Amino acid sequence: MSSDSIKYLLSEDRIPRDWYNLIADLPSPPPPVLHPGTHQPVGPDDLAPLFPMSLILQEVASERTIEIPNPVRDIYRQWRPTPLYRARRLEQALDTPAQIYYKYEGVSPAGSHKPNTAVAQAFYNKESGVKRITTETGAGQWGSSLAFAGALFDLEIEVFMVKVSFQQKPYRRALMESYGATCTASPSDKTMSGSKILEDNPDSTGSLGIAISEAVEMAAQREDTKYALGSVLNHVLMHQTVVGQEAIEQMEMAGAYPDVIVGCTGGGSNFAGIVFPFLGQKLRGGKDVRIVAVEPAACPSLTKGRYAYDFGDTGHLTPLTKMYTLGSTFIPPGFHAGGLRYHGMSPLVSHIKELGLIEATAYAQLDCFEAGVQFARAEGIIPAPEANHAVKGAIVEALRCKEEGKSEAILFNLCGHGHFDMQAYTDYFTGKLQDMRYSEEELAMALAGLPSVENTIGA
Amino acid sequence: MSSDSIKYLLSEDRIPRDWYNLIADLPSPPPPVLHPGTHQPVGPDDLAPLFPMSLILQEVASERTIEIPNPVRDIYRQWRPTPLYRARRLEQALDTPAQIYYKYEGVSPAGSHKPNTAVAQAFYNKESGVKRITTETGAGQWGSSLAFAGALFDLEIEVFMVKVSFQQKPYRRALMESYGATCTASPSDKTMSGSKILEDNPDSTGSLGIAISEAVEMAAQREDTKYALGSVLNHVLMHQTVVGQEAIEQMEMAGAYPDVIVGCTGGGSNFAGIVFPFLGQKLRGGKDVRIVAVEPAACPSLTKGRYAYDFGDTGHLTPLTKMYTLGSTFIPPGFHAGGLRYHGMSPLVSHIKELGLIEATAYAQLDCFEAGVQFARAEGIIPAPEANHAVKGAIVEALRCKEEGKSEAILFNLCGHGHFDMQAYTDYFTGKLQDMRYSEEELAMALAGLPSVENTIGA
Repeated sequence: MSSDSIKYLLSEDRIPRDWYNLIADLPSPPPPVLHPGTHQPVGPDDLAPLFPMSLILQEVASERTIEIPNPVRDIYRQWRPTPLYRARRLEQALDTPAQIYYKYEGVSPAGSHKPNTAVAQAFYNKESGVKRITTETGAGQWGSSLAFAGALFDLEIEVFMVKVSFQQKPYRRALMESYGATCTASPSDKTMSGSKILEDNPDSTGSLGIAISEAVEMAAQREDTKYALGSVLNHVLMHQTVVGQEAIEQMEMAGAYPDVIVGCTGGGSNFAGIVFPFLGQKLRGGKDVRIVAVEPAACPSLTKGRYAYDFGDTGHLTPLTKMYTLGSTFIPPGFHAGGLRYHGMSPLVSHIKELGLIEATAYAQLDCFEAGVQFARAEGIIPAPEANHAVKGAIVEALRCKEEGKSEAILFNLCGHGHFDMQAYTDYFTGKLQDMRYSEEELAMALAGLPSVENTIGA
Repeated sequence: MSSDSIKYLLSEDRIPRDWYNLIADLPSPPPPVLHPGTHQPVGPDDLAPLFPMSLILQEVASERTIEIPNPVRDIYRQWRPTPLYRARRLEQALDTPAQIYYKYEGVSPAGSHKPNTAVAQAFYNKESGVKRITTETGAGQWGSSLAFAGALFDLEIEVFMVKVSFQQKPYRRALMESYGATCTASPSDKTMSGSKILEDNPDSTGSLGIAISEAVEMAAQREDTKYALGSVLNHVLMHQTVVGQEAIEQMEMAGAYPDVIVGCTGGGSNFAGIVFPFLGQKLRGGKDVRIVAVEPAACPSLTKGRYAYDFGDTGHLTPLTKMYTLGSTFIPPGFHAGGLRYHGMSPLVSHIKELGLIEATAYAQLDCFEAGVQFARAEGIIPAPEANHAVKGAIVEALRCKEEGKSEAILFNLCGHGHFDMQAYTDYFTGKLQDMRYSEEELAMALAGLPSVENTIGA
């Protein structure tokens, strides 16, 4: 029988008291966010129709820490601190001298790391008198997490779910409805932007860009309604730093420090959560650590995109942010890690890539599922397709250590379980899952269509 | 904002060191298990083709405690001790003076309480040199838990899954395959009993009884292969007592003792897990506690069945046990709590019902889903359909307390999350879910067909 994997668990009083703001420790701040019309930096007031002022101030904050309100910590206590494991059975299966550690965020009620920010955003909205929050969701992880938070704070949640996902993933929708949220297939006739799309194309299966437009439009219409985003923005990434802060303490318990941290990246919130607190320590003169961002080969913003000002949505309603982008008109192919299907990358993650503080790599879908199944058989937990990218990255590092005879400590965040994603595993086992490729031509066109602000205002 | 629910978490060293054997504290032992041919009590040797001797000895054990082997405790540590919560938000939603506590077993990698015994059974089989374990599964919770345990102990797992579930629930099957198990639709041509059914009826959609016959037949064929059951038997129920033992300590942390414990009952293992340790304390002179078993109205063995000797399977290959039964030929209608669709009840749970130590009640499917959704919106966790029966029972007790103006402490076990059961919630929200009724005529026929041993050898 194998020697067993080890759990490192913190007591409840070790739930972090503050979120960590990486910007305070960076050698330079990220480039400013620009108004889509004037190309001038936006101020807090420009964002006020969409977000409560408390979150806007977090978005532009420069202080190193922001205190987590007690009601948010009280709710975090339902599942936090999350466990950190040493994956000894996986190490043995790989026959590697490396130590593999993983933080596990799948223990949250929604099954992923998303509630860390959903609860915070629901709290601040409630506090400012908001009655209703709109959002968009692709695969449904973010929508169900906000629905969960909305139930706890008695907020109406309106989720616009990309129609093709709405039809193909009825279970995520049922989860949102179980929490009391309203889930609408987008495009819908609830908004002008949705109605217009339906007029032009009644059979439209929707896109994340359209869903964002609908959610933003609905939020802007009513005083008591705001909009929420599940990744990309600074304050969203900051809320996720509870993950890395706990991991720092848990690695201490394990008597180790990571030589390399691997994180999967879609919009960037999972990556930031596990990475930023460690990176902050390094920037303040702490131990060195390699940081590897893993993205899907079918949507490789960090590895194949351009660092440029771009829109967050296809409808071009959002401000312009400087980020690694494939172009806002780029439509990634329909691979199974829906949480990683975004044309851009968080401006903050993009900025630290540009600063040379992190590496980036991309893996294809089949390789990631193979890694996920190996992980499940060794460690007993079946990862979400998004998390499989981190698993794959960690296994690659562990096999490198084996070749080099090094016993490095590798850390990654298993950001969610795969219980809602078993269709993808079914497809994998029945040979129906294929590696999806984007069209080089379409990528070139999308990049050629980037707005021409990048030459006037740079980093 | 509401005041929040509270988590009571034990440290790892509080994982129980022993399983608790209720039989040691009962005023009388349960009636003997009989050989299906001779109607004479079976001995350990009769069971040896199917189970390793260590588990057979646990099945007939009379000592109060049996030490949990260290390798089993080491694996329990991946998710144990599980949290116990005070459901303050649910209390507020119900406006009840009652205190509602729930233990949460959904944090296990398979999402239910079943790994508590799956890991133990896999360990003892591995220890005795077994290479392969066969089992049957209906909804798939047990099959996926044994698959999980098999992966950890490097055992081949052969699961016979009732064909209609195999086709309707591909996700549970994908989970088993992710863990490396083989999952076969039953009836199959892998066994004589399956082949015979297929000859007679090539379109047979299977039944739990047929799947048991196939699993038992395959286990009996090869020396290195044994059979495992996920509920009903004494040793299986005993493995679940880690749940109640932890709950005793956690209720102490909360400064409370349950006035009433509510448990949902299918084969009886979840019920036994939360109830037996408390009942044992009471039998040894401890505090009084009311115990309520909740079963589905569509398969009401404890409330509508007869206490009689009966077979565990429809094929009549198993020994005869005295239990509350609806008759082994009774086929319950296809309601969504598949884990509660068993014609009989664990002999030990039946025995304590007969001794007057527990009450029993039955609720219809729609009422249980309504309760589950109310729970999800208050507490943030979406229960499995089986667990909804316990939630319903707890809410009924809490509303009684409200009427009576009593602040009783109510405890139940939330034995699993509903992430794999969202089709049922989808059906509930779209109005497709109906209350299923069994045929009174068929029940009468099934009861009339009970084997006639009950008059010769009684309790």
